[in-house]
Amino acid sequence: MEQMKYNLEKRFLHGGDYNPDQWLDYPEVLQKDLALMDKAKANTFSLGIFAWSTLEPEEGVFHFEWLDKMIDDIAQNGGNVILATPSGARPAWMSQKYPEVLRTNGQREKMRHGGRHNHCFSSPIYREKVARINRKLAERYHDHPALLMWHISNEYSGECHCDLCQENFRQWVKRKYQTLDAVNQAWWGPFWSHTITDWSQIESPSPIGEMQVHGLNLDWRRFVTDQTIDFYEHEIKDIRSLSPNVPITTNFMADTYDLIPFQSLDYGKFAQHVDIISWDCYPAWHNDWETTADLASKVGFINDQYRSLKQQPFLIMESTPSGVNWHDVNKTKRPGMHMLSSMQFLAHGSDSNLYFQWRKSRGSSEKFHGAVVDHDNDENNRVFKDVAEVGNALEHIKEIKGKNKEAKVAIVYDWDNNWALNDAQGFGLQSKRYPQTLQEHYRYFWQNDIAVDVITPTQDFSTYDLVIVPMLYLITEDTMTKLQDYTKNGGTLVATYLTGYVNETDLAYLNGWPQALQDLFGIAVKETDALYPKQSNKLAFAGASFEVQDYCSILDNHDAEVLATYEEDFYAQSPSVTKHPFGAGTAYYIGARTKADFLGVFYDQIIGTLGLANPWVKQGHPAVSVQQRGSNHYFVMNFSEESQEICVASEGIDLIKKESTMQEIQLAPYEVKVIRTTDV
Amino acid sequence: MEQMKYNLEKRFLHGGDYNPDQWLDYPEVLQKDLALMDKAKANTFSLGIFAWSTLEPEEGVFHFEWLDKMIDDIAQNGGNVILATPSGARPAWMSQKYPEVLRTNGQREKMRHGGRHNHCFSSPIYREKVARINRKLAERYHDHPALLMWHISNEYSGECHCDLCQENFRQWVKRKYQTLDAVNQAWWGPFWSHTITDWSQIESPSPIGEMQVHGLNLDWRRFVTDQTIDFYEHEIKDIRSLSPNVPITTNFMADTYDLIPFQSLDYGKFAQHVDIISWDCYPAWHNDWETTADLASKVGFINDQYRSLKQQPFLIMESTPSGVNWHDVNKTKRPGMHMLSSMQFLAHGSDSNLYFQWRKSRGSSEKFHGAVVDHDNDENNRVFKDVAEVGNALEHIKEIKGKNKEAKVAIVYDWDNNWALNDAQGFGLQSKRYPQTLQEHYRYFWQNDIAVDVITPTQDFSTYDLVIVPMLYLITEDTMTKLQDYTKNGGTLVATYLTGYVNETDLAYLNGWPQALQDLFGIAVKETDALYPKQSNKLAFAGASFEVQDYCSILDNHDAEVLATYEEDFYAQSPSVTKHPFGAGTAYYIGARTKADFLGVFYDQIIGTLGLANPWVKQGHPAVSVQQRGSNHYFVMNFSEESQEICVASEGIDLIKKESTMQEIQLAPYEVKVIRTTDV
Amino acid sequence: MEQMKYNLEKRFLHGGDYNPDQWLDYPEVLQKDLALMDKAKANTFSLGIFAWSTLEPEEGVFHFEWLDKMIDDIAQNGGNVILATPSGARPAWMSQKYPEVLRTNGQREKMRHGGRHNHCFSSPIYREKVARINRKLAERYHDHPALLMWHISNEYSGECHCDLCQENFRQWVKRKYQTLDAVNQAWWGPFWSHTITDWSQIESPSPIGEMQVHGLNLDWRRFVTDQTIDFYEHEIKDIRSLSPNVPITTNFMADTYDLIPFQSLDYGKFAQHVDIISWDCYPAWHNDWETTADLASKVGFINDQYRSLKQQPFLIMESTPSGVNWHDVNKTKRPGMHMLSSMQFLAHGSDSNLYFQWRKSRGSSEKFHGAVVDHDNDENNRVFKDVAEVGNALEHIKEIKGKNKEAKVAIVYDWDNNWALNDAQGFGLQSKRYPQTLQEHYRYFWQNDIAVDVITPTQDFSTYDLVIVPMLYLITEDTMTKLQDYTKNGGTLVATYLTGYVNETDLAYLNGWPQALQDLFGIAVKETDALYPKQSNKLAFAGASFEVQDYCSILDNHDAEVLATYEEDFYAQSPSVTKHPFGAGTAYYIGARTKADFLGVFYDQIIGTLGLANPWVKQGHPAVSVQQRGSNHYFVMNFSEESQEICVASEGIDLIKKESTMQEIQLAPYEVKVIRTTDV
Ligand SMILES: [Zn+2]
Ligand SMILES: [Zn+2]
Ligand SMILES: [Zn+2]
Repeated sequence: MEQMKYNLEKRFLHGGDYNPDQWLDYPEVLQKDLALMDKAKANTFSLGIFAWSTLEPEEGVFHFEWLDKMIDDIAQNGGNVILATPSGARPAWMSQKYPEVLRTNGQREKMRHGGRHNHCFSSPIYREKVARINRKLAERYHDHPALLMWHISNEYSGECHCDLCQENFRQWVKRKYQTLDAVNQAWWGPFWSHTITDWSQIESPSPIGEMQVHGLNLDWRRFVTDQTIDFYEHEIKDIRSLSPNVPITTNFMADTYDLIPFQSLDYGKFAQHVDIISWDCYPAWHNDWETTADLASKVGFINDQYRSLKQQPFLIMESTPSGVNWHDVNKTKRPGMHMLSSMQFLAHGSDSNLYFQWRKSRGSSEKFHGAVVDHDNDENNRVFKDVAEVGNALEHIKEIKGKNKEAKVAIVYDWDNNWALNDAQGFGLQSKRYPQTLQEHYRYFWQNDIAVDVITPTQDFSTYDLVIVPMLYLITEDTMTKLQDYTKNGGTLVATYLTGYVNETDLAYLNGWPQALQDLFGIAVKETDALYPKQSNKLAFAGASFEVQDYCSILDNHDAEVLATYEEDFYAQSPSVTKHPFGAGTAYYIGARTKADFLGVFYDQIIGTLGLANPWVKQGHPAVSVQQRGSNHYFVMNFSEESQEICVASEGIDLIKKESTMQEIQLAPYEVKVIRTTDV
Repeated sequence: MEQMKYNLEKRFLHGGDYNPDQWLDYPEVLQKDLALMDKAKANTFSLGIFAWSTLEPEEGVFHFEWLDKMIDDIAQNGGNVILATPSGARPAWMSQKYPEVLRTNGQREKMRHGGRHNHCFSSPIYREKVARINRKLAERYHDHPALLMWHISNEYSGECHCDLCQENFRQWVKRKYQTLDAVNQAWWGPFWSHTITDWSQIESPSPIGEMQVHGLNLDWRRFVTDQTIDFYEHEIKDIRSLSPNVPITTNFMADTYDLIPFQSLDYGKFAQHVDIISWDCYPAWHNDWETTADLASKVGFINDQYRSLKQQPFLIMESTPSGVNWHDVNKTKRPGMHMLSSMQFLAHGSDSNLYFQWRKSRGSSEKFHGAVVDHDNDENNRVFKDVAEVGNALEHIKEIKGKNKEAKVAIVYDWDNNWALNDAQGFGLQSKRYPQTLQEHYRYFWQNDIAVDVITPTQDFSTYDLVIVPMLYLITEDTMTKLQDYTKNGGTLVATYLTGYVNETDLAYLNGWPQALQDLFGIAVKETDALYPKQSNKLAFAGASFEVQDYCSILDNHDAEVLATYEEDFYAQSPSVTKHPFGAGTAYYIGARTKADFLGVFYDQIIGTLGLANPWVKQGHPAVSVQQRGSNHYFVMNFSEESQEICVASEGIDLIKKESTMQEIQLAPYEVKVIRTTDV
Repeated sequence: MEQMKYNLEKRFLHGGDYNPDQWLDYPEVLQKDLALMDKAKANTFSLGIFAWSTLEPEEGVFHFEWLDKMIDDIAQNGGNVILATPSGARPAWMSQKYPEVLRTNGQREKMRHGGRHNHCFSSPIYREKVARINRKLAERYHDHPALLMWHISNEYSGECHCDLCQENFRQWVKRKYQTLDAVNQAWWGPFWSHTITDWSQIESPSPIGEMQVHGLNLDWRRFVTDQTIDFYEHEIKDIRSLSPNVPITTNFMADTYDLIPFQSLDYGKFAQHVDIISWDCYPAWHNDWETTADLASKVGFINDQYRSLKQQPFLIMESTPSGVNWHDVNKTKRPGMHMLSSMQFLAHGSDSNLYFQWRKSRGSSEKFHGAVVDHDNDENNRVFKDVAEVGNALEHIKEIKGKNKEAKVAIVYDWDNNWALNDAQGFGLQSKRYPQTLQEHYRYFWQNDIAVDVITPTQDFSTYDLVIVPMLYLITEDTMTKLQDYTKNGGTLVATYLTGYVNETDLAYLNGWPQALQDLFGIAVKETDALYPKQSNKLAFAGASFEVQDYCSILDNHDAEVLATYEEDFYAQSPSVTKHPFGAGTAYYIGARTKADFLGVFYDQIIGTLGLANPWVKQGHPAVSVQQRGSNHYFVMNFSEESQEICVASEGIDLIKKESTMQEIQLAPYEVKVIRTTDV
């Protein structure tokens, strides 16, 4: 990324998806847009995401003039363009003429044309059509001065079970395992007579076929990631060669209202293939089931995770200036929330605040999705003014752009583990909640203003003082060695219940809890008690009693220090939380699903021991998040509906309001201050 | 209708669906039926609704003798016949020989033979078969003296996605839009690259294809109505020419336990094609989630709506004398309820009380659906006696037959709007509740014994003193003009939140809330806040505070009088309810979803101003419904489990009990009195 | 069974499913297993259940050597083998080469290879392949000294709607009804024009076709049972002739968490075809919605029912020593529960305690299902020690093996009735709960330590003092005669609401409640009131008031004694529970759905009158179950988490602990004592 064009820009990106192709019959609208962009201090627009039917209305007939003009207009306006490849939705003529481009779903139904994102990743014809339009775009615009970045397709997701994909999957399996014997070993073939005797017998999982071979399920999900990346690599081939200095990204997503990591693709792998991470973030602010701070902590988690994927600043590619159209209730942001939530992105390492979308559609399903410019075209409405205010603020704080975040704490999330664990028949089928559990650990650090990276097991652990690895049910031998090495070299490690059950192909470890983990933690896990929703147990820890739920590991203590014991059931008095010196480091094991109260006391001790408390925050508040970026820039954000006060180590300047700040910082509800400290 | 045969009958229709074709092997049963009909004073029977396999057991082989005898027998008994065309369910031989007659569902699965109502409305073969059997019926019975009316098919509903229907849909779209450009404009083609470049690319919505093009969805639903009507018109062609003086109807339905208007077909259109409206009404009396009066109000709503479709008396074609078989709990009517609920139909303009069905089936899914004659054949059971009592009462009050109802208040319901609004992505996805909201407004008038018409936007507004138009999200330019004209000419108009968003093809209005509405209401709607289920706001109105939920419009007041303001959130103190003189009239806007408490105070004021209170009811009761029919007939109905007393303006005669009534009227629980006032 | 090999074994069977074919690449594991079997006193193993792909990896290529060795090893270890036919899951090559072996589901989708149990029962090719492998197994092992029993396939279930099965169904219908006229009579053909005019029009029920012809639905379910039995008979043909003295079984199941009888197959019929009943029992011990005793009562019910199917000892073929993998929460057994729950099986007549499975799978969906040997291979873990303890106990009590149970009380369960009642449209669609209602009656007897048989209507009633027949909605003329004869001859009969509605083909009885029932009970049922969930009524009975729900029969009393009357609603004061002398016996009718409180008082009276109280139990406890087997063996089981004391008629010896017992018996939580009384 160092030499790339994007890094030469000395400003945060502000703007977003712009679909002028919907408005070509409304020239006055397009004209108005340019004026409004100026007013909103919007400088960057993603163009062409769904423009294929406009770019190539008939097979082989291309229309670029409108796009030429649009890019030129934006350039003239002082703006930049993120140019999309249009593969996210194809023209109807293509589905009609070449049905192979359409997906087949798991039930083996051929999907029909409609929606978007539903193309086969294997189809040679689709790849050919995509390659051609992408090449034409690259040829035409690769040296346009306004071209800032490439936006490949849109929100890659889904899977295809057509014959072409089945064949690709078989080839994938063959490359991985080489022999059928190895496949049958890995997938535990003889179970239910499922031994495979010919490669052609391999098929993707299906609700009307096979769903019980968990090794197959896991490999299928890995294949889906690999095949998606393969398609992406196919998309960027000519683009890369024609515009080697223009960075390439594709927009990632999070999942569900709960804002957990995207479930269907392994972004840990995908991240290796993009120049810069970008993602689309849609929290349900002001909902009726959690506090604003609780939600903000989840937003922080995903931002930190996606930043950590490449350990560099990332982009918010899509967000909404008001509400969305697909939540159960599509609530607009209350006054102050747009500034606050925009700054939170930057606080966690974003170099942009881009919106979906610039102008509201007039028809179809997204016509009420929040946008900068509403159907009323009015620059005086609340949303437009909020956006303009953010645009202004971004200019005031542009010195922060490109700065990294430093974290001494890492939480480990693994897509393979998530898939395998969700598939696992056993324990509590509804209570796994792996990503949510990570977020509960994360929340402690967020509330205490301690920076956290969220990394995969394949990333480097050695730079961290504290590594937290909850519920690593699927754990490879390599990861066990890594955890040992990390701890041996002085690291502090925290693991939990449901760790260490299966290997890379989802086969159970034999002969007891893995020896490497026994050595590391000084214990052996003997059983995992699963609790019904209305059942609980208690831990005695640090002189108090803490309720636990869902899972209780029953442990043999070899030579660990017992920090907590159970208080109830047949394993009362037995160890539940342990601490074990290992080499120069320490390995903690939390045997039960605790709540925030326990995690608070537990991590207080560790943070105290390791000296990881945020040195700048003298007196914080759980609902006030302080995030540092670079050496002397702080975002101080009040995620509550009340005024708050915190106390920090140094005075500074609020860059947005251009006023100096004291050590006591008062914050109005939802207020954010971006402070450059003056003592540096 | 004036010259038609039905109008020559000087009695209410009493009887119902009769399926002797199920009992041809039980001659003693058929004999018994005739005697029982007499005893129940049942005079009208719908025959042949599902008799096709008996009428034409083999292709081209017809058996009418049994039907001849049945009609003759009924005639001899003094009864009339409503003769059905049998297209509601076809014989197995037909599905087997001509699979094209079977429907294809939205998933594009070919349905198999079974159930009923699942024929393709486009199939030329089905149309040919239907035409032939209908013509034979008409030829044979058109001049039978007992023939009172034609009952075309049964409960038309559903849709077909087969290739024949796809082609018909394409033709429909072509007729409507003429050019592909116009289609792409109307359906906002470029959105997600959905531009259509050939007519053949148009397909019906499908869960495995397209569901997001809302203009397409809306037009598909319109097409389904039009195609159903087209099929109906095909059915009646020969019947009309052979029996021009016999009225034709088909039985309409309501939807769900909630008793809302039927959702799948636009009865506003369909009503133009029938001579008389008839419908099938199945309230869940005595349920455990609402009061009897609340349910009665909903029953009143639908009856008033279907009456208003043609502004003339209608028929209850099906109802049950006890319980049904498809509610979650199929409860029988408590003593008194059958008389009460039967009279309610008449009170709202029905000229009949017909049952499904005369005699309980012996087998299959409807064998426990309530019927006049039970499996026990017993004229002494509770249901039979209840029916006979109603039969008797109907004779006592027959002078009311054919009388119209007069209403000065109209509530506007629009099928197009309902479809578009339910489709709308945005606002609260679960909280739209358009028909339910109308029913909540209606309830005020029902509780206050004020007659209401429920009309479509295409009907005439000019005869009303008060027109209520809640949530008209989809509003055409024509309707805006109509609303202006109505108000300008002295009308009082009430509109609400979620009004005025999209035009006829579901495209958002540009440049702010439509100018016509701004002029009319003296305000502009700036935002619509959507509230989560646990959230609320409050209105300050008329010196009190009223809770509101789900939706709050945020308004710019131009020159309206502010009647209420919000009390909470960032728009506290801003206007929520406004009043605006327009020409000779007044336009009210209710900006938030209020509850019955607010509507009570609000409408009390309007009713007071307009002098719309029921002059005959001096002191009413919310659970006692008074409905007038003609100039001096009143139905006084106690929909509660307690005795009630009301006070009216004049004395009269209770036609059922043949006793005089005072100005103070006492009603036992569930009691109904049908009063002819003596002062006229 | 008398001369059969199994009966020569003088020990309870202990062991279970063993799948060494999953471990052929792990010889050390197989070696270890033999040693562990010894330690667990496990003597019987079911082999080959899913071994087809190992036995016949290529079509016609057979590998038996591994199985030879396994059987020999077990034999040498002193153990026995239950040898399975492998039809429960077939090799992939077979599905691939012969797609006809795969099922077609009700939606008419061809299922793909995967899972298990999804073969077509009609496929000639599948039958040929099964016959060949079964014959080879029988030829090779029929005279192996370790061969104790045949285990045919695995948990037969499901259905197939392919063309082959449709044709078989048509033949079945033809055999049953002979003429189409008879079919149309039985299925009430003319309803909705469903008359069949050619055999080829008959098709299985389908959600995309016919679901409303209840006679068809019922016959289809009967056909599925018959076709499954036919397949089973095909499987055992050569086996029977080659090993006439080796008993044959197939493992039955129960349904749902609620532990009700298996719903899909009529085990009453199937039982006639097996030599010994065996079944797979998986209660959710320690759940959070019911007491341990309540669940134990349900376990007792199913065991008594499956024992009663052949009125002889049965086998537990599968159970878990810890938890399962498919409950929502897969909780392990608390200390003591494994011994307790194992002994409960024996207490109700089981001659075995066999597990699924011996050794946990390493991969796929069952790798966390409880098993004797865990992945840790450890004989010191809790589960293994629990199992060894049970193994030990079984040796101490082996004198009980083969002993029968005697019951003077029978509850009648009918699969036909269950199917017809669940299908019935009417009453409360969600509140039928037929099997659960039987279990509520059963619980009274379980709590009072009175032995109960659960029989079908075709079994002999004459040996019982009390026969309870709840909710026999479908009742044949034969059953009515049987009930009359039973009562006439001095029996006591209890029937309830929802009895006597339809005949053998689901046609409603005409002319009122069947005369035979009127004569028997001295009443006529006039109506059945269905209550919404929040509604109730009350009975006045024996000086107290009892709440009733869901159903209230409204009765005409002819000459019965009224034991209870309703207290509310329009039928207040009318009879709800009646008693009627009939011949030498008495017939009771309970007209409403009562709760345990009523049943307690009601049955106390009957038990007192009939002298059916358990003579050995002087002072029992509802949570302590006492079950007698043979003349002087008692299982005394504390299904509670507290210590309990009961008092019995005689002293004895606790065979497990080898200590004498007094008349006062103290039981620790979950404790079980197996007592041989010394006074015999
Ligand atoms: Zn594909
Ligand atoms: Zn069609
Ligand atoms: Zn089949």
